[in-house]
Amino acid sequence: MIYLTKRVEFSAGHRLYSERLSAEENERVFGKCARPSGHGHNYALEVTLCGQPDPATGMLINLAEFKALLEQRVISELDHRNLSDPIPMLRGRIPTTENLALSIWETLVDKLPAGRLYEVKVWETQSNWAACRGEG
Amino acid sequence: MIYLTKRVEFSAGHRLYSERLSAEENERVFGKCARPSGHGHNYALEVTLCGQPDPATGMLINLAEFKALLEQRVISELDHRNLSDPIPMLRGRIPTTENLALSIWETLVDKLPAGRLYEVKVWETQSNWAACRGEG
Amino acid sequence: MIYLTKRVEFSAGHRLYSERLSAEENERVFGKCARPSGHGHNYALEVTLCGQPDPATGMLINLAEFKALLEQRVISELDHRNLSDPIPMLRGRIPTTENLALSIWETLVDKLPAGRLYEVKVWETQSNWAACRGEG
Amino acid sequence: MIYLTKRVEFSAGHRLYSERLSAEENERVFGKCARPSGHGHNYALEVTLCGQPDPATGMLINLAEFKALLEQRVISELDHRNLSDPIPMLRGRIPTTENLALSIWETLVDKLPAGRLYEVKVWETQSNWAACRGEG
Amino acid sequence: MIYLTKRVEFSAGHRLYSERLSAEENERVFGKCARPSGHGHNYALEVTLCGQPDPATGMLINLAEFKALLEQRVISELDHRNLSDPIPMLRGRIPTTENLALSIWETLVDKLPAGRLYEVKVWETQSNWAACRGEG
Amino acid sequence: MIYLTKRVEFSAGHRLYSERLSAEENERVFGKCARPSGHGHNYALEVTLCGQPDPATGMLINLAEFKALLEQRVISELDHRNLSDPIPMLRGRIPTTENLALSIWETLVDKLPAGRLYEVKVWETQSNWAACRGEG
Repeated sequence: MIYLTKRVEFSAGHRLYSERLSAEENERVFGKCARPSGHGHNYALEVTLCGQPDPATGMLINLAEFKALLEQRVISELDHRNLSDPIPMLRGRIPTTENLALSIWETLVDKLPAGRLYEVKVWETQSNWAACRGEG
Repeated sequence: MIYLTKRVEFSAGHRLYSERLSAEENERVFGKCARPSGHGHNYALEVTLCGQPDPATGMLINLAEFKALLEQRVISELDHRNLSDPIPMLRGRIPTTENLALSIWETLVDKLPAGRLYEVKVWETQSNWAACRGEG
Repeated sequence: MIYLTKRVEFSAGHRLYSERLSAEENERVFGKCARPSGHGHNYALEVTLCGQPDPATGMLINLAEFKALLEQRVISELDHRNLSDPIPMLRGRIPTTENLALSIWETLVDKLPAGRLYEVKVWETQSNWAACRGEG
Repeated sequence: MIYLTKRVEFSAGHRLYSERLSAEENERVFGKCARPSGHGHNYALEVTLCGQPDPATGMLINLAEFKALLEQRVISELDHRNLSDPIPMLRGRIPTTENLALSIWETLVDKLPAGRLYEVKVWETQSNWAACRGEG
Repeated sequence: MIYLTKRVEFSAGHRLYSERLSAEENERVFGKCARPSGHGHNYALEVTLCGQPDPATGMLINLAEFKALLEQRVISELDHRNLSDPIPMLRGRIPTTENLALSIWETLVDKLPAGRLYEVKVWETQSNWAACRGEG
Repeated sequence: MIYLTKRVEFSAGHRLYSERLSAEENERVFGKCARPSGHGHNYALEVTLCGQPDPATGMLINLAEFKALLEQRVISELDHRNLSDPIPMLRGRIPTTENLALSIWETLVDKLPAGRLYEVKVWETQSNWAACRGEG
């Protein structure tokens, strides 16, 4: 089995704040991430596909088309945006790294051949990242 | 001459927008950085001092004290903030990388012995950074 | 399934030397890592949890609490130490990268909810690392 | 289960071009990678083994011997070469990152104890890489 | 004085070989870099300007225009090329990292306002780079 | 003027402790770096030369010879050593990053043509480094 990964980057603002929690609970759970003004990050997105390379081209997927898919479906929706604004792919979820990985998975999974999407990984900083795999 | 550099990181939001310019000019000059919702970055700050090490300790400056100075005077003011809010050290400047480097220089230069501060470098992304040196 | 990883760093000394082997065998097996004076590394530790995010917070685990757990249980025991000294979590094992990953796994697995710990990865240098997963 | 990874690097030239396709198709599929003069990359190779550490040494494999195996079997064959020349381990395959990972897997799998080779990962750039695992 | 740096990347092939030297001398001087098939690298280019930010925009130069200049004048000429082919900006020089830095300096210096170009740095690998400054 | 930099790495142990200071002062000045068992780091060394490339080769210095010089004069003396042991090039200095940069400068300056050595930079971690330049 061959796995192919493409990495792209975007910069965005966000604020971690739950409408289900009181102001005190938000402060306790999210700390300085809950400050009203928001803040932001340089995010990195790594999307991994799996399968067998095409014998004629040696490629699992055409990399230029794969990059274009990520740009059109993900980067154009998230880059230089505030992720705490209503972003369609987030479906009202709090923009944690975990929810970003899940939302990008949902966005991409039916734009690719069945079984091809293996992992979506989102880096919030160089010491903090989350991944979504379609297991189970 | 010996140079010593300490690197620290912070995450912040910002929007590039000048009150002196029309909305169209802001769009033309700052592009997607001018969007009203703002966005954000993982910034890195590298501060370089110069001088001669203390013969008794082999250190140009005590690194723990230097890190504490950066935390108290810079990181606590900028981390998890929106740099387009009124931040005292920015003095109303547009939060470009150039202006951040200049403002952090001004903040630190008189907290250190005369002639010790050599360079303040601010990284907005891994492909875009600015530095301030106190020349001339 | 969602995976969340936190990276932390520590610096430590070590010497690779087995009491079960002769001096010549230690030299042959461990090379310059067996020198009596020891040496050291900047280690990085990446701990990955798996599970489902809490719907109220969007988080698999509270990152601040997770970081505090790693600091209290691992970093405070290993940072600025000599790993060839008697370190409780190492249980007398030779401080290879493989044994560090195994020992940190054992240290963390029962401090986290059952089934949450997915992988402990330890980097000795940027070209050499080991991971422990709880499979089988 | 313990996983141990060693990273090595090499620099090589290549051109992506399929004899099975017309010049127009090659241009469409491979874009600027199909230019006749070729180009090149700084590749990184990460090879991961799995198993249990030897109780006497705490090592899954002797790292010096593992590095020597990678140098002799892979790096000496690929470093400062043109991967579009006839390279035995490539068996005439187009030198995509996917095919490099597959070919290096095939080269190493029978030089190591059965079941030890877990993953071969090849980085073409810092935003594009492929891996081969021996599953299924 | 403020310094602003932009980093861009390109991939290219090259061969180090001097027509002024014999085959034996080329082998002795350039080693495996002289092999006839050539090889290649992922190059990085960092261009630093100096000056005072525009008070109206807080920018030393418009970053989007600066990036476009680098793309049009440098990257489009070097990316996915073989630097040992006749490349106009190289003027027949051997494509060492030193000569690349010099040639890119010459290409850019009169496309920018006088005195603005401070340094051109070219990375051949992560452990080998050259810079050109316009001193003296 | 052209600048050429070579980066090499080494791993070593050290303890920061001054015989001129009391135990309490050492603890106050050096903190956990003063612990008797010592610790260690993955150091990186970047040495920059300046000058004009040789027109026949396009090189400021032969990179292979430059690397061999660094290996023989510096790396073989420091790699997998304890820098708090008597290391000739350190001349009894406390092994701070500042003193390492100074000592490596002294070691290299008369092994190179006069005026060629521009900077010696030593990285103790990715957030802490020192440089020595031969100014004034």
